[in-house]
Amino acid sequence: MSFDIRRLSERKRHGEELSPPEIRELVRAYTAGEIDEAPMAAWLMAVCCAGMTEEETWALTDAMARSGQVLDLADVGRPTVDKHSTGGVGDKVTLVAAPIAAACGACVAKMSGRGLGHTGGTIDKLEAIPGLSTDLSAEGFRAQAQEIGLALAGQSASLAPADGKMYALRDATGTVDSPALIAASIMSKKIAAGAQAIVLEVTVGAGAFMRSLDEARALARLMVELGRRAGRRVGAVLTEMDAPLGRTIGNAIEVGEAAAVLRGGGPADVRAVSLTVAAWMLVAAGLADAFDAARSSAEAGIASGDAWARLQAMIAAQGGDPAALELPLLGHRARAHGAWGVEAEGVVTRMDARGVGEAALAAGAGRRRKGDAVDPAAGLRMLAVEGERTRRGEAVVEITASSEEHLAEAQAALGAAITIGDRAPEPRPLILEVIPPEGEA
Amino acid sequence: MSFDIRRLSERKRHGEELSPPEIRELVRAYTAGEIDEAPMAAWLMAVCCAGMTEEETWALTDAMARSGQVLDLADVGRPTVDKHSTGGVGDKVTLVAAPIAAACGACVAKMSGRGLGHTGGTIDKLEAIPGLSTDLSAEGFRAQAQEIGLALAGQSASLAPADGKMYALRDATGTVDSPALIAASIMSKKIAAGAQAIVLEVTVGAGAFMRSLDEARALARLMVELGRRAGRRVGAVLTEMDAPLGRTIGNAIEVGEAAAVLRGGGPADVRAVSLTVAAWMLVAAGLADAFDAARSSAEAGIASGDAWARLQAMIAAQGGDPAALELPLLGHRARAHGAWGVEAEGVVTRMDARGVGEAALAAGAGRRRKGDAVDPAAGLRMLAVEGERTRRGEAVVEITASSEEHLAEAQAALGAAITIGDRAPEPRPLILEVIPPEGEA
Repeated sequence: MSFDIRRLSERKRHGEELSPPEIRELVRAYTAGEIDEAPMAAWLMAVCCAGMTEEETWALTDAMARSGQVLDLADVGRPTVDKHSTGGVGDKVTLVAAPIAAACGACVAKMSGRGLGHTGGTIDKLEAIPGLSTDLSAEGFRAQAQEIGLALAGQSASLAPADGKMYALRDATGTVDSPALIAASIMSKKIAAGAQAIVLEVTVGAGAFMRSLDEARALARLMVELGRRAGRRVGAVLTEMDAPLGRTIGNAIEVGEAAAVLRGGGPADVRAVSLTVAAWMLVAAGLADAFDAARSSAEAGIASGDAWARLQAMIAAQGGDPAALELPLLGHRARAHGAWGVEAEGVVTRMDARGVGEAALAAGAGRRRKGDAVDPAAGLRMLAVEGERTRRGEAVVEITASSEEHLAEAQAALGAAITIGDRAPEPRPLILEVIPPEGEA
Repeated sequence: MSFDIRRLSERKRHGEELSPPEIRELVRAYTAGEIDEAPMAAWLMAVCCAGMTEEETWALTDAMARSGQVLDLADVGRPTVDKHSTGGVGDKVTLVAAPIAAACGACVAKMSGRGLGHTGGTIDKLEAIPGLSTDLSAEGFRAQAQEIGLALAGQSASLAPADGKMYALRDATGTVDSPALIAASIMSKKIAAGAQAIVLEVTVGAGAFMRSLDEARALARLMVELGRRAGRRVGAVLTEMDAPLGRTIGNAIEVGEAAAVLRGGGPADVRAVSLTVAAWMLVAAGLADAFDAARSSAEAGIASGDAWARLQAMIAAQGGDPAALELPLLGHRARAHGAWGVEAEGVVTRMDARGVGEAALAAGAGRRRKGDAVDPAAGLRMLAVEGERTRRGEAVVEITASSEEHLAEAQAALGAAITIGDRAPEPRPLILEVIPPEGEA
């Protein structure tokens, strides 16, 4: 009876601060299966309700990071830098910024997750490339990081296992939505993954977890502080996610758009956000002293073709076929084709990121429940985005879907997500705020 | 996905009111095993944190009361009245007040619980009577209520099964301490048990769940309102529980003290509280118009020997041996004897009910975990209580314990719970407030 999680839950809900040893023991005992799911769920809800101090959040993060293997990438021979996005709709920034950073001398050895609900996941997008594996061994991951400076793998179960177990429980019990738990979950995995520098892309708006700038700023600051306590050099970029990023949503189709940006084309917003994130990655890694110089390097990485070559090399190293990047939808065939907005005449006044994300999900591009399969071919291409004109007889969105039913569902969702009107809305800035990288490195 | 408890938990924790159909469906699905323990535990913690409106609490209570069998005692031929105590230390009021009410013409067909932690339970006390069974069939319970007007049984699993399941989960997850959940748990069982009138004894102070008068008053009002919504005539008596009630704590020893009061002796405080509760039971049952007349009837019930005879008849009907009431500790033999305070000289300035309850628990009289056995012989007899003198060479508390180790533990606990000083404290009133019975009857 010396350790009783019920007492911790009661004290937490009454606003008491728990001690670091108490939180460490909680994480150890839960990971070891000594605490049942129900009392843990009650504790998580008490945290959702009463919050945690920064000290408590750090104890939780640190205990979760140490709950399994902690990678040491010090011997890869280049400055290591990781990035993380809190998730968005059409957010393919990792696929662009990571090859740029690698081209500029950094080692980006990164583990990513799968998508859930209306937000996509980098792993799902990568797996749309025929043959490519994201299931790398620890040795393969390290070797590839050394050789190419770029490895994108699925989250390893041996890293921060406490987070894997706790996240599944949070997902099942309505206890996801807590800044402290979100920050601890993200940062425990990043700390265990071993990179010395980390850039966080914190999305804000209708399509993001954080709906307001204030919430996003608080989460970003907390995560930066946790990373710095772990001895990492961490910064954050707050990006706009009220409307989707770029002109594509889906798995194969987003890889195609990322490839277009690395080849010097693609939508201006994807290019701008990716270059900014890549530049801060270079600053965080110590490869540039200031943002402007870093941004110039990043642009040069695209212009020289190095970043594009880096992506192709990574695809080949992970067993994928880089030639697929030349094919529409990476060679996948969609089972149903359609469009939305053919009759609409005017200007796109609103394209709600969450709503459009739900439409892509309905088309077959995402998963409603963990473990569902995603259709690599399903997705949306926006021919007109906010502020652009639409014309009768021309589609606003082209849809590729898993079936005619999926197509109809996606069309209905788009109707609720997109408004056509008379006047273009004020353009919004893409980069809302930056917390420059600081900390030991 | 039409019913998702996770959404209810999220909405509840953000302070939203849930609708009666939502709460009814939650109780139905949980009782039927369609909702897992972990999401239910998270919901319960959200309720602990955010509270429930009276409307929500009524929906919960009503759904729990209807989750199993609902008794109808209309045909027992006398006005039915139930009582409930929120628990105390040395609280043997049921054993005194119920026979008095029965002697005055009421039918008290009551289901009680076992004790947990520092508070005792009526069923544990009754089971200290050799041979007595509290496991009555529905027919036996009803027949005994008709014949004697008095039946005290253990909680039937077929009444309010939702409460049984939910209480076990609350106990395991640190979600016991919520006024709404406490009120719903108590009142769902009372409503299902069928009595038309109910008197609630709500204890206040160090030995009670409710530490302050404000908390106790709020809980009492809420429970009274829930009972009235169910069409019952309900009142409440707020009683002092800062120091133990009476001079005994334990199972056999408290039955002995209750018997002494019914025979016209016993401690004045037990007598006073029991007569007050019994009198309000008579008013609630419609057997008296006003408190003073009811109180006189109750006193007459003791003086005539009717109440004492009623207890003996009940014991015999439930298979027990009434002759055991003549034996010290009902004929049980204690394995270890001892005392506390032999060297202390002065006045008892403080006897903390919780601390003394913990000492009785340590002696073997209670259970630390559900399912533990209790020792009927273990307990405490206070030779001096608050305000009384102690003398060198004379014990303050006599202890009967399950073993020498239990004895030593009880002695240590008493040392922390009792203060001997110079000046007697101000006496505190026993009855703090009353909510007179009202409502349909």
